[in-house]
Amino acid sequence: MVDRPPDLAHPGAMTTRPEITAAAARIAPYVRHTPVLTLQAAALGAPCDVVLKLEQMQVSGSFKARGAFNALLQSSAAGAGVIAASGGNHGAAVAHAAGALGIPAEIYVPAIAAPSKVARIREAGAVVVQGGATYAEAFAASETRRAETGAASVHAYDQAEVLAGQGTVAREFEADSPGLTHVLVAVGGGGLIGGMAAWFAGTTTKVVAVEPEGCPTLFSALRAGAPVDAPVGGLAADSLGARRVGSLMFGVAQAVIQDSVLVTDEAIRDAQRRLWSACRVVAEPGGATALAALLSGAWVPPPGARVGVLICGGNCEPGSVAG
Amino acid sequence: MVDRPPDLAHPGAMTTRPEITAAAARIAPYVRHTPVLTLQAAALGAPCDVVLKLEQMQVSGSFKARGAFNALLQSSAAGAGVIAASGGNHGAAVAHAAGALGIPAEIYVPAIAAPSKVARIREAGAVVVQGGATYAEAFAASETRRAETGAASVHAYDQAEVLAGQGTVAREFEADSPGLTHVLVAVGGGGLIGGMAAWFAGTTTKVVAVEPEGCPTLFSALRAGAPVDAPVGGLAADSLGARRVGSLMFGVAQAVIQDSVLVTDEAIRDAQRRLWSACRVVAEPGGATALAALLSGAWVPPPGARVGVLICGGNCEPGSVAG
Repeated sequence: MVDRPPDLAHPGAMTTRPEITAAAARIAPYVRHTPVLTLQAAALGAPCDVVLKLEQMQVSGSFKARGAFNALLQSSAAGAGVIAASGGNHGAAVAHAAGALGIPAEIYVPAIAAPSKVARIREAGAVVVQGGATYAEAFAASETRRAETGAASVHAYDQAEVLAGQGTVAREFEADSPGLTHVLVAVGGGGLIGGMAAWFAGTTTKVVAVEPEGCPTLFSALRAGAPVDAPVGGLAADSLGARRVGSLMFGVAQAVIQDSVLVTDEAIRDAQRRLWSACRVVAEPGGATALAALLSGAWVPPPGARVGVLICGGNCEPGSVAG
Repeated sequence: MVDRPPDLAHPGAMTTRPEITAAAARIAPYVRHTPVLTLQAAALGAPCDVVLKLEQMQVSGSFKARGAFNALLQSSAAGAGVIAASGGNHGAAVAHAAGALGIPAEIYVPAIAAPSKVARIREAGAVVVQGGATYAEAFAASETRRAETGAASVHAYDQAEVLAGQGTVAREFEADSPGLTHVLVAVGGGGLIGGMAAWFAGTTTKVVAVEPEGCPTLFSALRAGAPVDAPVGGLAADSLGARRVGSLMFGVAQAVIQDSVLVTDEAIRDAQRRLWSACRVVAEPGGATALAALLSGAWVPPPGARVGVLICGGNCEPGSVAG
């Protein structure tokens, strides 16, 4: 990454601050302005004080609701319903957003999806179509169905409206915690970090990407110089296992993201435990991944750093975070 | 309660706003300014929107740390160590505060105390002395030991410094959520609501006391016109089962508290479940008791009410809140 100049060949593809600000106004009636919590270094056993943005308290249990609402509120096809493929947080977010907006939703989930997540999608009022061994098969089935019905679709990460929606979390974080030098963010398909990096581009806040060793989509893409397939495995695969980052976010990532680091599953589990012990926060594995980089030393803050960490999701069994 | 005029015979006993403001400055380096989260009515199935103050994220897992720090920072006897009797949140808070201030602590806990809470007290660095069938026996043992050692003590609720410390949570709540018409607070020994009512006295914010049917200390005292013994039982007894309210808070309670209501254990359990489902907040039974009054209809907000609810503790097994 360090020996490669920023790729600004397609600057027009980067989500802009005005687009994110417009998204924030659009989705404000439907999503929560999630709180921040400042913890002293000793509370977490961290090398410095940390400001957590508690996005696991968002509607539907993750940041995904921001992008889902921003996409659905601008979709001309939503009158014919909405279709999405996801057995996890994206599915729950689209189901929630569709329910809130009175739009019929069908969510295609692979057979391996966690029963608790499938139940949550159903509780939000969506029709669940379960089948296919993998996410890719569920996605293919959803596309076939969409072609038949003319329904709208919301991509889990590679869609401009989704990136702008996810970027609103950075806008809130900056407003509530001005002066952060670094913000750590977990990466799956890259919609979240793509939107956040677009917001912080040109500011003094550097964005650090964190991924599990088991699903290093952005890490692999930055090394290859383009989005490439990566392994999908490990503790956080249900939320961060996207196979490859989206094409829309990659230029932003190359131009803006300061560092890309990997963490072990044990570091993620430890971060979940410490969050519970220090401040009674329940984060799913993907939600604790960014913090794991700081606590494990996978990413070391420079002297004087003022570090923010996004806790991006809490869709797990609460008992799973106990020590 | 309604046919009894406020008892202002001892107005000098009421904690004052300047005392609470001084306490806030004193304890600021050691405690957290906990966040608030606004939820739309539909999120919780509540009759109105609700602003939650998330005090379960406080150091030691409950508001008790505020009073403990405020008392220890003013104690001239703390050089000889500190002694407290509690198998619960007060013990954890005194142990935490003493550890942070470098003061040796002995915490006397009854035999029935929950092992997880005893472990937490020990992890904070305190010496745990477990014995006696009841809290009263543990308290008596702690007093005997204190007379021998000259150590400081911190009362769980009936001490002026403790009331002023707990009052700082109301000061933060008002600053972060101006314009609340009602604030719902759970009551055990009354230290929390006594301090909060002292802060809100003379304002347009009314304080509503909520207790489990199983341990109605304030409800019984207000009916009797004086603190009296009440039953100690039910789901929240480990944090709210104080037997009777403190003498220092009773005048404040009579003068300021708008309403005193009781809730069932089932309503408490339901409030815990809805907090988890709606916003991934884990509250112990006592921590969800105030919200239970709103969700169960035990307390009905008047039209136009702007309601705040204090989530006062999260010292439970996280898995215990799952539906």
